[in-house]
Amino acid sequence: MSTLTFPDSLPSPADDCEQLHKAFQGWGTNEGLIISVLAHRPAPHRREIRRAYAEIYGEDLLKSLDKELTRDFERAVLLWVMDAAERDAVLANEVVRKWSPGNRVLIEIAVARTAGELFAAKRAYQARFKRSLEEDVAAHTNGDFRKLLVPLVSSYHYEGSEVNTSLAKSEAKMLHEKIKGKDYSHEEVIRILTTRSKAQLLATFNDYKNQFGNPINKDLKSDPKNEFLSALRAIIRCITCPERYLEKVIRLAINKLGTDEGALTRVITTRAEVDMKQIKELYYKRNSVTLYHSVKKDTTGDYEDFLLALIGRDDA
Amino acid sequence: MSTLTFPDSLPSPADDCEQLHKAFQGWGTNEGLIISVLAHRPAPHRREIRRAYAEIYGEDLLKSLDKELTRDFERAVLLWVMDAAERDAVLANEVVRKWSPGNRVLIEIAVARTAGELFAAKRAYQARFKRSLEEDVAAHTNGDFRKLLVPLVSSYHYEGSEVNTSLAKSEAKMLHEKIKGKDYSHEEVIRILTTRSKAQLLATFNDYKNQFGNPINKDLKSDPKNEFLSALRAIIRCITCPERYLEKVIRLAINKLGTDEGALTRVITTRAEVDMKQIKELYYKRNSVTLYHSVKKDTTGDYEDFLLALIGRDDA
Repeated sequence: MSTLTFPDSLPSPADDCEQLHKAFQGWGTNEGLIISVLAHRPAPHRREIRRAYAEIYGEDLLKSLDKELTRDFERAVLLWVMDAAERDAVLANEVVRKWSPGNRVLIEIAVARTAGELFAAKRAYQARFKRSLEEDVAAHTNGDFRKLLVPLVSSYHYEGSEVNTSLAKSEAKMLHEKIKGKDYSHEEVIRILTTRSKAQLLATFNDYKNQFGNPINKDLKSDPKNEFLSALRAIIRCITCPERYLEKVIRLAINKLGTDEGALTRVITTRAEVDMKQIKELYYKRNSVTLYHSVKKDTTGDYEDFLLALIGRDDA
Repeated sequence: MSTLTFPDSLPSPADDCEQLHKAFQGWGTNEGLIISVLAHRPAPHRREIRRAYAEIYGEDLLKSLDKELTRDFERAVLLWVMDAAERDAVLANEVVRKWSPGNRVLIEIAVARTAGELFAAKRAYQARFKRSLEEDVAAHTNGDFRKLLVPLVSSYHYEGSEVNTSLAKSEAKMLHEKIKGKDYSHEEVIRILTTRSKAQLLATFNDYKNQFGNPINKDLKSDPKNEFLSALRAIIRCITCPERYLEKVIRLAINKLGTDEGALTRVITTRAEVDMKQIKELYYKRNSVTLYHSVKKDTTGDYEDFLLALIGRDDA
């Protein structure tokens, strides 16, 4: 569920554009006004604002914002003004160009989205970058990670609830054998994790636990320093409970010495209208402090105000 | 271009349904009437007929046809009545369940279609079979073929005309090195062939010829019995000139001892409204006999009449 708050009646897109234009005028920028408009409008309304702005002022709102704002606040506002698909495309492109084995953003975008959302992101990627996401991932990754990430971003997953229980049993066994033999990047492991539907994989993971005693992710923790194992666990967590996975991403971003603003901004802008309410609840349960409080403590200025506006009230 | 012929003014879908229903009545089926209706209606009109038929007679037209018709004629008519995406889904499912290294149908469907057509086929596949195409291909193939076919059916290719010439140069060099070293299933070869856009690949193949003297497909002919090499050549031919590739599929189907009706039906039903005119021209150039004449000679009865109706006049 969304954490966004709106005025009882939304101003027209043209009125909102006028406010934004006013915020850009004169000496200095009125960041507060920008936040009060953009952070309190749902996605379809923001899209209308962007369209109206281009029509009235002859410039993409993203460009005007880019000129006026700076640093973390700028990045957060720009991502927020984009459509969800465009935002994912931009985030994916950012990471693919400087990809490293420790980066989990492609997994987040490929797995913690619906098949339709991922497909929309891939279309947006092509429209913006004139290449396909899969071709860039294939060209910028290598070894076992390439074997894993290319099918992960390529597959168009079935999303029905049908489950084949005997298949779940046999594939759970297959996963267990390969994990036991430390053959983590075996092509059958990759095939199962990257092509099966989420419903089927949940059945497989449940069967794994029933047959072999441990949750599969526990068996994948044999070497905490192995980035490939960590990537497999991230995939499995994004399948079994994306909100819990994203809570951890936020927690690590906040607890990191110096705060990982990139991750914090990414998760908050991509999930505010999706499941931020659940993430906030999980955050409070796990950290005994509200996400609002943690963000307030770890960030400053307009960036702080903007993130707090997106995550809504100081509750769990 | 299409080879279909239509009456000057198309009857209403309801009138066509009445004719079809009449053809199913009484003793025996009036195959001629079925052909005269269905083989002379464009795809959107056939879709309307199918919708109207279900509404009027409470049964899917496919089911009624299935009861009335038999053998090659039945298969051809059923495929023809389906939407293009549904047809590709059914054809892909047929081959994936009994896949063998010599089968090229998945390549034909993955490469001789636009990215949008392949995506539509994948959606139709899920709707009909409650699984994804990529998961079935991954589960039913193995070894090098799996490494090749899974990304081939998974990728959503960029279709713009932008070409990166220095990339074409470096990837042509990479392909040449691997081919020279007989390392045909090297992951870089597969990456390039399965993820790059067609425009980019054409530039790469041209560069290959310029740099190294031979067309790439000539260098991939070192072992004519190697099915994997033959699959790579099929991919490259479907990229460079799908009509020429499909002409060859038809030629081999006709020249085969006993005729390969499966392949003949597949290519004619899938291409009649796409590029059958070009295929006919290429067929005549290559065989010095019209496709019409060859099909007439090699097939009989209603099946013959139906295919001839789809490929249009006896010209080149």
